[in-house]
Amino acid sequence: MAAPPTIAILGGTGPAGMGLALRWARAGENIIIGSRDARRAQEAAEKIRSKAGDGAQVSGMENSAACAAADLLVLTVPFEGQAALLKQLKPAIRPGSVLIDATVALAASVGGRASRTLGVWQGSAAQQAAELVHQGVSVVAAFHNLSAELLNGDEYLDCDVIVCSDDSKASERTRLLAAKIPGVRAIDGGKLENARILEQITALLIGLNIRHKGHGGMRITGLPPEAYQ
Amino acid sequence: MAAPPTIAILGGTGPAGMGLALRWARAGENIIIGSRDARRAQEAAEKIRSKAGDGAQVSGMENSAACAAADLLVLTVPFEGQAALLKQLKPAIRPGSVLIDATVALAASVGGRASRTLGVWQGSAAQQAAELVHQGVSVVAAFHNLSAELLNGDEYLDCDVIVCSDDSKASERTRLLAAKIPGVRAIDGGKLENARILEQITALLIGLNIRHKGHGGMRITGLPPEAYQ
Repeated sequence: MAAPPTIAILGGTGPAGMGLALRWARAGENIIIGSRDARRAQEAAEKIRSKAGDGAQVSGMENSAACAAADLLVLTVPFEGQAALLKQLKPAIRPGSVLIDATVALAASVGGRASRTLGVWQGSAAQQAAELVHQGVSVVAAFHNLSAELLNGDEYLDCDVIVCSDDSKASERTRLLAAKIPGVRAIDGGKLENARILEQITALLIGLNIRHKGHGGMRITGLPPEAYQ
Repeated sequence: MAAPPTIAILGGTGPAGMGLALRWARAGENIIIGSRDARRAQEAAEKIRSKAGDGAQVSGMENSAACAAADLLVLTVPFEGQAALLKQLKPAIRPGSVLIDATVALAASVGGRASRTLGVWQGSAAQQAAELVHQGVSVVAAFHNLSAELLNGDEYLDCDVIVCSDDSKASERTRLLAAKIPGVRAIDGGKLENARILEQITALLIGLNIRHKGHGGMRITGLPPEAYQ
């Protein structure tokens, strides 16, 4: 059997990246954790392998090497690190790659509240990402609204993932990946410009979590069954 | 038994206003439909009474008269009509009233798409409303994300209503009202400034409805039971 496609999680040593890596490793995906520091990436990979169980395929690499080794990239860094990292990785990202951006421009990035967002000139952090990569790279916005704490646990996630992209094939590939997380349903949310709303929802959920002491998620109701992947 | 508090639905002859009126009339609330035209309001009230069944208390009045007769006001007008209507009604709204604003600044207001929003200088349509009423009036943002079509039907709504206000008593009163709609759970969403996100979500749901041909709603998951009213 051929190895499944490799997914590189850039900035993958943070809680969101670790959680996604864990869930996808359990689903049999071949994962690379990317980090500025290759050793930190390898340590994170080791941690995920030990949680994910036997046969989990998780390795760790410096971010550029991770980009060179995969064509499905997931970016999970705080907003304040997004642009600088993408500028640095631009030459390493292979043409034809899919870059899934989960960045949210929380005001916490500049010392403000995590329940508020900053305005991003391009409309959203994902659209900023699209401006910073080569034209042949397809940017997808997704995974903003999954609780990192829940992702790092063992339970089913009671959450939907809305996926936005101007490249319908990249969007579909991302939806298939989302649906591998137990409990998650993926929904096509249309063009990348709609990412701004997904990003805002994160701030709303963080505010609800602070107020109500929970791990808020979102389900979309009322769509026909074929809308959910 | 004393009559329940009266709710005036301003601009209540549109689909959202009619739908809320129907659901609350069925729950035994005393409803006034407000409209620019008293006769249109009375016709709408008659229609709701006939759908809501025996004993439904629904009357119709010109908007100013409706404000004078109630202290719980619900504003369901398109964004392009909101500011002008509030300026006109300012003297008629009684001090101490609660004004529940459900306005969304859809780009459709200026000939654009209903899946996109306009930027509102104050941050949200609800914050614009707060600027346009007397200080003694408490503005609450809620009911943006209930499908008007579903509200006008008979079925249980698979949706949550997030309620935002700077006045916690007004927020609580609104949450109790929201929870009278079968299926709806009300959630305290904090300050009025968070309304901007609720309003954006409407545009997202409209986009999903167009794309997937549904009547999208939203449930918030992962909060402790006491967060849901």
